[in-house]
Amino acid sequence: MNNGLKVKPLTQEDFAAFGDVVESEGRDSYFINNGMAERFNALAKVETRGDGSYPIISLVKSKKFDLPRKVDHVEYHPLGSQAFLPLDQTPFVVVVARAGDAPQPDDLHAFITNGQQGINYHADTWHHVLLTPYAAMSFICVDWRGEGNNCVDYHFPEIRQLWLEIPG
Amino acid sequence: MNNGLKVKPLTQEDFAAFGDVVESEGRDSYFINNGMAERFNALAKVETRGDGSYPIISLVKSKKFDLPRKVDHVEYHPLGSQAFLPLDQTPFVVVVARAGDAPQPDDLHAFITNGQQGINYHADTWHHVLLTPYAAMSFICVDWRGEGNNCVDYHFPEIRQLWLEIPG
Repeated sequence: MNNGLKVKPLTQEDFAAFGDVVESEGRDSYFINNGMAERFNALAKVETRGDGSYPIISLVKSKKFDLPRKVDHVEYHPLGSQAFLPLDQTPFVVVVARAGDAPQPDDLHAFITNGQQGINYHADTWHHVLLTPYAAMSFICVDWRGEGNNCVDYHFPEIRQLWLEIPG
Repeated sequence: MNNGLKVKPLTQEDFAAFGDVVESEGRDSYFINNGMAERFNALAKVETRGDGSYPIISLVKSKKFDLPRKVDHVEYHPLGSQAFLPLDQTPFVVVVARAGDAPQPDDLHAFITNGQQGINYHADTWHHVLLTPYAAMSFICVDWRGEGNNCVDYHFPEIRQLWLEIPG
């Protein structure tokens, strides 16, 4: 039952069901500051739910992960979106499933960034923790602060664990 | 009257009246993801005001600025905070003044980052456009989208123009 989870290159189109890809590639822009700066506007919407909640900016430093790796856990945030924007131009891997009931292994999708892309999970989108298989990496994180439980976990039964391998 | 505007190293303490410094240096952290990632939480609060407004994530690519440069314009955003988080580990310069009446030249403060720092202007904080004197730079921008005018401009009278020069 240990079918590998195939890792595909991250694209805006394929990721649209799960969240936003924060990248300038293929996006419209306009100039600000008397032509001195080019703005690629609103690549992601930051969403927060719940009275008194608000978005925050944090830094997250991820250690290097070894692959292949069991993907045996996913989580989602019911009260807000969550963006990870890398400060290193290094690819990383995101594993997601559509919002709704706890995913089956076949519902998982794995994407690898091209080193110029950040991601923003929509609220309710199931996701594995960020995987940084090439190096320790630092990220800007834009997510939620407030009252209430903003993390729902799901552990796959043992038999449904999957292995993630990056092709090539 | 062309007194130079002295540029100081950016510190959390000196910048507190104007906004947040987004850096891990000197900040508390905790581990997440089974110890695989270290989170420096809530380094900045994202603020939006106005019905139907919400925060967005954009990319801003700034051209290289020549120095010395006239600082003859400032602006502020009444409806939200505005963060600039550099994707290049290169210093840049921010010029700010406290919220309130249009600043006099002596009210301006100029700071240079250390290459590991981002900034978040509080709503209402007067600021010059970002200055990137060392190189063209890319930034993650976290600010506001909504209805209403979110930019108030002020042009200094000619006689009050200042020149920015970076020491050393």
